[in-house]
Amino acid sequence: MQVLKCEYAVRGEIVIHAQRLQQQLQTQPGSLPFDEILYCNIGNPQSLGQKPVTFFREVLALCDHPSLLEKEETKSLFSADAISRAKEILAAIPGRATGAYSHSQGIKGLRDAIAAGIASRDGFPANADDIFVTDGASPGVHMMMQLLLRDEKDGILCPIPQYPLYSASIALHGGTLVPYYLDEKTGWGLEISDLKKQLEDARSKGIDVRALVVINPGNPTGQVLAEDNQCDIVRFCKNEGLVLLADEVYQENIYVDDKKFNSFKKIARSIGYGEDDLPLVSFQSVSKGYYGECGKRGGYMEITGFSAPVREQVYKIASVNLCSNITGQILASLVMNPPKVGDESYAAYKAEKDGILQSLARRAKALEDAFNNLEGISCNKAEGAMYLFPQIHLPQKAIEAAKAANKAPDAFYALRLLESTGIVVVPGSGFGQVPGTWHIRCTILPQEEKIPAVITRFKAFHEAFMAEYRD
Amino acid sequence: MQVLKCEYAVRGEIVIHAQRLQQQLQTQPGSLPFDEILYCNIGNPQSLGQKPVTFFREVLALCDHPSLLEKEETKSLFSADAISRAKEILAAIPGRATGAYSHSQGIKGLRDAIAAGIASRDGFPANADDIFVTDGASPGVHMMMQLLLRDEKDGILCPIPQYPLYSASIALHGGTLVPYYLDEKTGWGLEISDLKKQLEDARSKGIDVRALVVINPGNPTGQVLAEDNQCDIVRFCKNEGLVLLADEVYQENIYVDDKKFNSFKKIARSIGYGEDDLPLVSFQSVSKGYYGECGKRGGYMEITGFSAPVREQVYKIASVNLCSNITGQILASLVMNPPKVGDESYAAYKAEKDGILQSLARRAKALEDAFNNLEGISCNKAEGAMYLFPQIHLPQKAIEAAKAANKAPDAFYALRLLESTGIVVVPGSGFGQVPGTWHIRCTILPQEEKIPAVITRFKAFHEAFMAEYRD
Repeated sequence: MQVLKCEYAVRGEIVIHAQRLQQQLQTQPGSLPFDEILYCNIGNPQSLGQKPVTFFREVLALCDHPSLLEKEETKSLFSADAISRAKEILAAIPGRATGAYSHSQGIKGLRDAIAAGIASRDGFPANADDIFVTDGASPGVHMMMQLLLRDEKDGILCPIPQYPLYSASIALHGGTLVPYYLDEKTGWGLEISDLKKQLEDARSKGIDVRALVVINPGNPTGQVLAEDNQCDIVRFCKNEGLVLLADEVYQENIYVDDKKFNSFKKIARSIGYGEDDLPLVSFQSVSKGYYGECGKRGGYMEITGFSAPVREQVYKIASVNLCSNITGQILASLVMNPPKVGDESYAAYKAEKDGILQSLARRAKALEDAFNNLEGISCNKAEGAMYLFPQIHLPQKAIEAAKAANKAPDAFYALRLLESTGIVVVPGSGFGQVPGTWHIRCTILPQEEKIPAVITRFKAFHEAFMAEYRD
Repeated sequence: MQVLKCEYAVRGEIVIHAQRLQQQLQTQPGSLPFDEILYCNIGNPQSLGQKPVTFFREVLALCDHPSLLEKEETKSLFSADAISRAKEILAAIPGRATGAYSHSQGIKGLRDAIAAGIASRDGFPANADDIFVTDGASPGVHMMMQLLLRDEKDGILCPIPQYPLYSASIALHGGTLVPYYLDEKTGWGLEISDLKKQLEDARSKGIDVRALVVINPGNPTGQVLAEDNQCDIVRFCKNEGLVLLADEVYQENIYVDDKKFNSFKKIARSIGYGEDDLPLVSFQSVSKGYYGECGKRGGYMEITGFSAPVREQVYKIASVNLCSNITGQILASLVMNPPKVGDESYAAYKAEKDGILQSLARRAKALEDAFNNLEGISCNKAEGAMYLFPQIHLPQKAIEAAKAANKAPDAFYALRLLESTGIVVVPGSGFGQVPGTWHIRCTILPQEEKIPAVITRFKAFHEAFMAEYRD
């Protein structure tokens, strides 16, 4: 049964245990060696205190209750550009009905805005007809898997380590995950030679490999692909006839000066590939970036290079679920078109955005350094996204203790970490890793003032763990 | 390929054609024999001018932009109970973070409120742990189908006619739809004898029938089940070991005095069946009722009577999509707990609610009478929901013309209706019907002042159609 095969570690056993401990802290304060649970398992910034961007929320509130726009007091409560943006958005919604089902792909005027945002980001045109607005990025991924996978002989090339949405969705839709390994030694590099090898291996086993998933910036690895590497990936997909599924939800989360985000569509168009050369899907979400609006469930996929009959099937799947939520649709149009220089909100918006991204960069660096200072831990640089994925070189004794407890060694480590410190991380086995290596994924999202305490608690735990299990 | 097999008529060919005509009206006004497209294909009240309930939108706006709660002007812009409700809701959300992913089942405090609303509706206890808050009702249906269907040997008993979400979801998840027929002659009655016959037929073909879908009030039929009938259905499910999937999204939409809504859970508990007797799922949505907040994508399913391992699988599927949108979650808690006598908003809320429901009842009656006054059309009473499903007794000549045009006869009729009047309805073939009978589904949602014009246009079309094709 496909549901039984599916695994989703970022909300798995350890998180459920953490929720139990959190209840225990409420009902029996002082009964645990820590006084709060610190969720570093999931990229959920606002759950850890990040504030929403004011402009976005002003517009949402006005669209939720449009009669505010007729009141005098509103002018003193909301910024002028939030008011004018809300009016523009309402004018773009048929009948100004924010409570109506929209077109299955999303409200046309909002898709126009999203396409304009993409075009301005990439310097290449984008088309509202290619946009499917979705409840976060996940439903888009499920739709594409549903479309691409007929049975277990259909395969999808996925990075290892990968975000478990992909393995879960492939399992749910009855296909086969064809792994390719990111190279930890070269900062989680993506080697075309490994891609090619894994593709040929799969084909020799009779697997019809239909698509390649690339997550850039990387989850859980935090790497940002170099432009050259992206060009090679695009050529590889064209030559091998693969759909390129580009998870680009961390496009705003870049923390190093020598890397920048390039969408795969921009790369493809830059090297002269048009619609006919390559079927390409780009996933974007309002949950990540500096906005971190996970709870609003907004996002979109931009699909290009598919034939009309295939697009019709995508439309049909989208239409079965009627439409994505309008609040999320509005927010997706906003994150792709934030305030501009000259707008009343611009200075405040810019300060909020820069404040969040600069703080994330500092937090990433502090955690990365802390991990690298611990015995038996090595951690690549967090160039982007919201995670670190350090390797834990576990002593043999710890591995045996895990075996005795019937746990994967990294799950054993993560569980002990939770029980000692309240820090929730996800074991590397949930993402996939080179056999015999062990990792954890830890978000960089605890509030900045809490980072020193997180590091202190983590260090104390790790040292005690190593002292207990050192070979 | 499961996607190709899936059909979803309420957003199918005719709707796509209508969207084309709508664009034509914009670019070439006057080029068609009507000046607006009237969408009667889908239960989408706000797209046809229904206003959202003020109290609900006030609370949503305050939750979207909580800093409003600190401002003095807010007291003059919002009702006192909307302000206090928003404060309660924010207090129930961990970290007051309306932009964070929630628990996979939905925010615990909101589920508590939903459970309290259910308990107060039914007079039997409800438990927040049994609630899965979802983006409208559809994702809950998909989750259950995903769980229940392993392959094409697994079947689901579905009414014919049915809402095509069920046929689409069963097709997408690779199972078999086992039809049972609602009896048009007895006002779309549900006959246990037919259920039993269809179940035995399916079993004799080796189908493992796992669940029974009942839609009450009915979609597309508009019937409301009698309490006795519901008792029989519950007993049938228990005796046959079937999961009862109760689509109860129209629970607030009842237009006749001699019928009332009873949840299947209330019925089951009333006849003494507890958790162990019957696995039961109730689907509810913020899209229907008097609220009609389709675009907000809120809803929940209440699941009772499942074993712990099965519930864990439901939880896992829910967790793969992280959580439903928080705005929809809040709204689901509100529709299950609207203002009460004594609250500042109560009188306004009550007037809005009654106004909408009374108007819907008048519109249903006017359309029903109009259909029954036309040659060759017979229409059952709309007791509830948002639709009429008249039978069109098409002349043989029309059936042959449809055949020549390579269309189902009811699709041919609906297409001609659209092209003559701009009225969009869904052909009965999209819902299933007794072979050789032809229907259309028409919502009762056009604004009340437009109903006379709708009837006039419909009548003129139908008379011309009959004149053209009369045998």
